[in-house]
Amino acid sequence: MSLTAVQVPDGHTPAAAFSSSLAKEDTSLAVVQPNPVPRGTAEYEKQRANLLNAFAAKVPDAYRLPIELISNPPKDVTAVPSTCGILTASEIDITENYDASGLAEAIASRKLTAVAVATAFAKRAIIAHQLTCCLTQWFMDDAIEQARQLDLYQAEHGKTVGPLHGVPVSIKEHIAIAGTSASYGFLGSAVQSSEDCHMVAILRRQGAVLYCKTNQPQSLMHLETDSHFGRTLNPFNIHLSSGGSTGGEAALIAMKGSVLGVGTDIGGSIRAPAAFCGIYGFKTTSRMLPMDDYLLETVPPELNILVATGPMCRSLRDLDLFMRVVHEVQPWLLEPAIIPLPWTGLQTPLADTGRQQEQRRLKIGIVTHDGFIEPQPPVKRALAWVRETLLAPGHAALVEVKDFTPFGAAEAWRNARLAYYPDGGAGMRDGILAAGEPVHPLSDWIWKAAESLGPVSGSTVVKYRDQRDRFRRAFAADWQRQDVDIIIGPTFVGPAPAHDTAFYWNYTSLYNYVDYPGLVFPTPVTASDGEQYQPGYSPLSEACSHVKSLWESSSFKGAPIALQVIAPRYHDNELFGAMAVLKDILNLP
Amino acid sequence: MSLTAVQVPDGHTPAAAFSSSLAKEDTSLAVVQPNPVPRGTAEYEKQRANLLNAFAAKVPDAYRLPIELISNPPKDVTAVPSTCGILTASEIDITENYDASGLAEAIASRKLTAVAVATAFAKRAIIAHQLTCCLTQWFMDDAIEQARQLDLYQAEHGKTVGPLHGVPVSIKEHIAIAGTSASYGFLGSAVQSSEDCHMVAILRRQGAVLYCKTNQPQSLMHLETDSHFGRTLNPFNIHLSSGGSTGGEAALIAMKGSVLGVGTDIGGSIRAPAAFCGIYGFKTTSRMLPMDDYLLETVPPELNILVATGPMCRSLRDLDLFMRVVHEVQPWLLEPAIIPLPWTGLQTPLADTGRQQEQRRLKIGIVTHDGFIEPQPPVKRALAWVRETLLAPGHAALVEVKDFTPFGAAEAWRNARLAYYPDGGAGMRDGILAAGEPVHPLSDWIWKAAESLGPVSGSTVVKYRDQRDRFRRAFAADWQRQDVDIIIGPTFVGPAPAHDTAFYWNYTSLYNYVDYPGLVFPTPVTASDGEQYQPGYSPLSEACSHVKSLWESSSFKGAPIALQVIAPRYHDNELFGAMAVLKDILNLP
Repeated sequence: MSLTAVQVPDGHTPAAAFSSSLAKEDTSLAVVQPNPVPRGTAEYEKQRANLLNAFAAKVPDAYRLPIELISNPPKDVTAVPSTCGILTASEIDITENYDASGLAEAIASRKLTAVAVATAFAKRAIIAHQLTCCLTQWFMDDAIEQARQLDLYQAEHGKTVGPLHGVPVSIKEHIAIAGTSASYGFLGSAVQSSEDCHMVAILRRQGAVLYCKTNQPQSLMHLETDSHFGRTLNPFNIHLSSGGSTGGEAALIAMKGSVLGVGTDIGGSIRAPAAFCGIYGFKTTSRMLPMDDYLLETVPPELNILVATGPMCRSLRDLDLFMRVVHEVQPWLLEPAIIPLPWTGLQTPLADTGRQQEQRRLKIGIVTHDGFIEPQPPVKRALAWVRETLLAPGHAALVEVKDFTPFGAAEAWRNARLAYYPDGGAGMRDGILAAGEPVHPLSDWIWKAAESLGPVSGSTVVKYRDQRDRFRRAFAADWQRQDVDIIIGPTFVGPAPAHDTAFYWNYTSLYNYVDYPGLVFPTPVTASDGEQYQPGYSPLSEACSHVKSLWESSSFKGAPIALQVIAPRYHDNELFGAMAVLKDILNLP
Repeated sequence: MSLTAVQVPDGHTPAAAFSSSLAKEDTSLAVVQPNPVPRGTAEYEKQRANLLNAFAAKVPDAYRLPIELISNPPKDVTAVPSTCGILTASEIDITENYDASGLAEAIASRKLTAVAVATAFAKRAIIAHQLTCCLTQWFMDDAIEQARQLDLYQAEHGKTVGPLHGVPVSIKEHIAIAGTSASYGFLGSAVQSSEDCHMVAILRRQGAVLYCKTNQPQSLMHLETDSHFGRTLNPFNIHLSSGGSTGGEAALIAMKGSVLGVGTDIGGSIRAPAAFCGIYGFKTTSRMLPMDDYLLETVPPELNILVATGPMCRSLRDLDLFMRVVHEVQPWLLEPAIIPLPWTGLQTPLADTGRQQEQRRLKIGIVTHDGFIEPQPPVKRALAWVRETLLAPGHAALVEVKDFTPFGAAEAWRNARLAYYPDGGAGMRDGILAAGEPVHPLSDWIWKAAESLGPVSGSTVVKYRDQRDRFRRAFAADWQRQDVDIIIGPTFVGPAPAHDTAFYWNYTSLYNYVDYPGLVFPTPVTASDGEQYQPGYSPLSEACSHVKSLWESSSFKGAPIALQVIAPRYHDNELFGAMAVLKDILNLP
């Protein structure tokens, strides 16, 4: 392993950070950073150091990894938490052998206490952070206190406060938790939150324990995670991205420092990091879950494409649990943007997809490419695995498999890049630069197409929306023509990309553009070195050639491959109904 | 009765129009017009005359009312169709004694033929048009041919084509029907429609017979109806407005020239005319019904406030029929903007409103004023009637009645006037003027607030939307605080207004701004002369004083009063569930 750069604030050396016995406020925390984020002005770096030091001051020495390990980490850091000696055997068991549903059950039945669970996850999270830079805030003391209250309640009342009683839930940085700060992934955007946003309030009321916030990229609009808090690494290969924008969550969950997290997705920001880190992620159709006070204010992209939210976790049933638990409080009564479609999830019968027959087969379309960019070899392998497994004898009575080519992928990507930035990106760019922060390469990349147009008028926005709505109708008609219930396809053009190379969002942003729900599930496939494009390969576009050259210029060894299941708009329940069928056939966790 | 102006195209006198036996292409059709719309340039008037002459050419002499009647009509013209001698006894029976559900049943059971029904309504519609200027297009021959095919189908197959088999449905001018033209209520906006829009295609597939399109105001944005086709009159008092923008429908249905019509509503355009003409109207929550190709293109107001559509008719069960018939084809499969909430309508149980108890009472809030404008006396009388009836002994087990004051009515009206015109009204204004058409006073009025700001940027639109969303949350929280299932209140500040005085949309546009479904039902109350404001009256606002002076400066005698029922966003089914309770208590048609 090569020696990798280590992130410590200005004025500290890694050695000083760990060998000293200075007071907490002078202590920094070393974090693995093979590709540090760009540096800004001296004033910016000073403010950034203050922020990182305030974080570090909360971290006890006992939870710190040896600086030798940080300076020379393995490429795959996933085994470190269970081997570094910081966690007890019980903490390893708690963090590795339960999903959220299992934890809730174990706490409800008094097999585990909420305090033990909170302790285990808070400890593992801070270990994960030192290896992947996945956190932005960590408040173990508050979490233990919250857990203690829950244990007391249970002891006194003989019951839990709700279905998530004692389950730790990690939250993406921009989502407001009372008493923490929230940002858009750049220093100048940070604000203090005096109250929980609606979603967090519901989770807390249902018994969730809050213990950390997780990293996201500058401006939120990268499929990687690189903010003023640093760059989040892929746990399976630190030279690759965790994905983004909900990349802190994905890395943390893959490191088993969280069992259930909450992300947002306007172009792939739940699904891409879930895929890159080999976990589950679900982006709902828009307006299916509470999002009041999720963002500091309405953002320009939402004029054209709505942000959706959803859970990230390690089991299919936990996705369902999350949806059920949030829906059962009828959040639409206080948040009228939410559409009150009752949640039936994994129990949804197939007939509800809108056709008449009962007991019919699930019609599955397989997307081998989108007509715009051919996926890299390990993604092709995962698609071959899913196809073969579905076509295996014994499944013919359950599923009908066909090829599917999504309508207009290249057009949707072109349109979306303009639709995201009716202000030409000026709002974010000005906000970043105002604090002396450098604009990161992927920020520049995503608003480049819109930047030359400058801020557009309301009437131009009308045209964007009209174009979008026409596209949506054409897409829906084409879906009907191809006659499927769901499709299964790539989540991204490849496995987790090398840092600063997640250029093409086409496999995820298409489903934001049409507002279809998307669920990412892990496969047994991982990337290997030396895999080649098929001999007959011919590029579908300039972007397709670029993606091939990206494949050939990095090593992706160990990166997990996850696939994406898509259902029509508002058919979130039917998507889960289909997953209940797929779970058994594909033997999913 | 005073002699009223008569609308005939330039180059014709009323006498010439009716006494001559010229070839059809030279024949104009006289229409009652006590307050003609403003005149434009000579070129505009020439084009307008061509349009009106093309309409007139289709109207047989046998269906024309005597010019003496047109020149000197009664104030209340509702009795004319059944007494003028043009309709047979059977045609009078068909048009007066059935609702749409009843017609569908009579045709399905072969009591009536589709041809007989189409003939009766087409004839009555053209009579209604001469008295109220309610039509823009009339195609009796096509309708008879369509009806003939339906009768043939039924004879051959022994069944109907669908639940609307043979039911005539009238359609608002801007909604595309194949082979007709569509406009925004001004000459320059007219285009030919080569195909049915999605809604019309569904209605046609379900058996509806199309026979006319109905009038709407210039730019669609008046609560009255005054277009290049002329001004639509209130059938009960021709010196009052039919309401708008779906005013042609309302007048036509009140004249019994239609049994079921389709309108649109972004500020009250279904509900106000329904109320002014004493019929039923239902504006859904947005995205509940097909609207593909409803408008010629996406309009700027929809950046902030979505247009909704819905039925207008003469019975509660017909509103339900319409919703059921459109939903049962699963329109969301081809139009992904539609939210697939299954229609349960009048069968919706009370428990579904979101609370747990079964068999509980319906909680009704009564709005006596909105804190911004006190309604005129007959509206107060209708509210007193509804309150007394609900509180009558015997109903206490079914309903719980409380006072309700809607949150932020004045603020919503201020915000909405800006939100409707992110382009400062320029798009419509330029389109109107380009053809030499004069801008009507109510067009000027509605965009006045936004006009001075000019076209706003996308970023300003973001602010409008943010303001709207904050308002919606506050409104929802306040609704929860007041703890009601539905509210009943005014539809407008008064009964039908005198022409060109429908200035204040506050009682309807509030529910577009928050996107709550609204249903208008007729009451037994009608306006009388000489009614006074209550002695203790004190104006709630400058607008409130203005409304009082409007009341005191016109006669509203005979104008029907209808009230409005509102339920929370997406609770369209629950609204109908509540109506099923109210129907019996209030003895509604």
